[in-house]
Amino acid sequence: MSEYIKVAVDAMGGDYAPQEPVKGVVEALREKPELYVYLVGQEDVLKKELDKYTYPEERLEVVHASEIIETGEPPVHAIQKKKDSSLVKALRMVRSKEASAFVSCGSTGAVLVGGQVLVGKSKGVERAPLAPLIPTATGVSLLIDCGANVDARSSHLVQFARMGSIYMEYVMGVKNPKVGLVNIGAEEEKGNALVKETYPLLKECKDINFIGNVEARDIPKGVCDVVVCEAFVGNVILKLYEGVGATLISKVKAGMMSTLRSKIGALLVKPALKETLKSFDASEYGGAPLLGLKGLVVKAHGSSKANEIKNSLIQCITFSKEDICGKIQENMKQDNKGDN
Amino acid sequence: MSEYIKVAVDAMGGDYAPQEPVKGVVEALREKPELYVYLVGQEDVLKKELDKYTYPEERLEVVHASEIIETGEPPVHAIQKKKDSSLVKALRMVRSKEASAFVSCGSTGAVLVGGQVLVGKSKGVERAPLAPLIPTATGVSLLIDCGANVDARSSHLVQFARMGSIYMEYVMGVKNPKVGLVNIGAEEEKGNALVKETYPLLKECKDINFIGNVEARDIPKGVCDVVVCEAFVGNVILKLYEGVGATLISKVKAGMMSTLRSKIGALLVKPALKETLKSFDASEYGGAPLLGLKGLVVKAHGSSKANEIKNSLIQCITFSKEDICGKIQENMKQDNKGDN
Repeated sequence: MSEYIKVAVDAMGGDYAPQEPVKGVVEALREKPELYVYLVGQEDVLKKELDKYTYPEERLEVVHASEIIETGEPPVHAIQKKKDSSLVKALRMVRSKEASAFVSCGSTGAVLVGGQVLVGKSKGVERAPLAPLIPTATGVSLLIDCGANVDARSSHLVQFARMGSIYMEYVMGVKNPKVGLVNIGAEEEKGNALVKETYPLLKECKDINFIGNVEARDIPKGVCDVVVCEAFVGNVILKLYEGVGATLISKVKAGMMSTLRSKIGALLVKPALKETLKSFDASEYGGAPLLGLKGLVVKAHGSSKANEIKNSLIQCITFSKEDICGKIQENMKQDNKGDN
Repeated sequence: MSEYIKVAVDAMGGDYAPQEPVKGVVEALREKPELYVYLVGQEDVLKKELDKYTYPEERLEVVHASEIIETGEPPVHAIQKKKDSSLVKALRMVRSKEASAFVSCGSTGAVLVGGQVLVGKSKGVERAPLAPLIPTATGVSLLIDCGANVDARSSHLVQFARMGSIYMEYVMGVKNPKVGLVNIGAEEEKGNALVKETYPLLKECKDINFIGNVEARDIPKGVCDVVVCEAFVGNVILKLYEGVGATLISKVKAGMMSTLRSKIGALLVKPALKETLKSFDASEYGGAPLLGLKGLVVKAHGSSKANEIKNSLIQCITFSKEDICGKIQENMKQDNKGDN
């Protein structure tokens, strides 16, 4: 059946590999009949892990790869040297079109470098941004770019705004997604040289819904759907989001445990609170796509459990069905043609 | 008595002026016998406000200023035009050494511009950074720079690290404060051009305790006492801190109110939780100093209540007693002499 969406999964990457990636894959296969998975990694290890589950075996193929790229290995070197690693082999399957998407919880650096080198950028794309979804008061926003290529130019940011808009519209179903430019003030004349140069370019883009500058304070409120920034700033935002959230939640927990009275109260609020905090947990939203490549590359958290991996695979299905790669390439071709 | 610490307070700036600034001044005067305040603003308004309180009148002097600089006014223009504004008049008192410090909850832009233009930078200081204290899991860290002058050079960042270290050591009492450079990874070779250039310079500084790069995720954990970054990044960190905190707390509150069971629990945890969250509230730590000037300029939040203003005034006393301006100027003179 040719309508399967084929995804190559690096089963050996991440803190809980291969157990959690395998479990996530099994769960996704059970839930989505159109999904086909190439599970890439050490065959004996993976087969032993798969034996734990019943799943639609006709839609899973184990692809042997003897090596593993560890977190912390210099990415470029690892990609060049470990040709028989699960990460490299799985990415090559996207390049060769055997698979339309790739998912890994492995080394961010290796996924970013490998995605660009082994899968390659679409024609017209200047830089491939890493674009995770971040939780907000009202839902999620796409934070673009959080990748490893810093010191971007304004033309990059304009492309990020366009790619992000396509993603939010067709993968997340947000009509006419609002695009905001991260800045230190709301006024057009504020900011550093990069954003000052980018602002008028975004204003002229007719194919996006640019709402102007957004201050970091307003990002968690969900004021825009696509949060455009340079990768250094995006990385700071993403990591601070996690850091402030984690510290604050541990403070709340400690506060609840501080007196006998509050301990009793904690027992009562716990179930309701757990549900609420789950909605502010980034892992609920799958991994981050590396956009602008010839195929979809998804980087899931290193600490991903089965649920995030399952969600990443589901995201791949929508992405492929909606032909986001094609839509992005089409849009990039029109580069600047949207302007007067 | 010449040992008074004299502070000029812009009583007309901020969302709750003049009520809260006046209340904060009164509370500080009652608590600190060495404090002397010039309360600058519209005399009739201030006197009426002061009539509400009993306080040591011999240590407060109302200085009349007829104009008010509003938030949102273009700073440079406002400073030049409104010469009889409370902000300009109070800053001039620092310039003329009538007062050793200045506190305002008014327009950030006007305070930053006014501080640099009217008070002036100390000799050797290339750029005056705005350095608020931010709450962490273990206490507070100084985030330097969050000011309005973006696109810094590496030599600026090195000066920020030094000034921040002096502040944390002598005002906050942290011995040998740990200095971290905000980056997107822990390794020396990571980052954008600016931080790559700054890292080796900080490593060579013998008068600071440089611990290397810090990722944004680790800032809330309190891994370092002085968090060095360029102003655009600092602004994003500061505002996102507030934004994520506010959104998360409102989520926690909503979660607690979602079921009858959790509502009862909420009543029980509330007192303990309030105490904990207070420790993560930036307003507890007074305003942000603008360092490297010939006198102390403190910018308090626009939404400051009396407590923050009182704390800002107390901060001014320590700052002046420890002669931080003198220490910074001394340190800047030795610029690069600490290196081999």
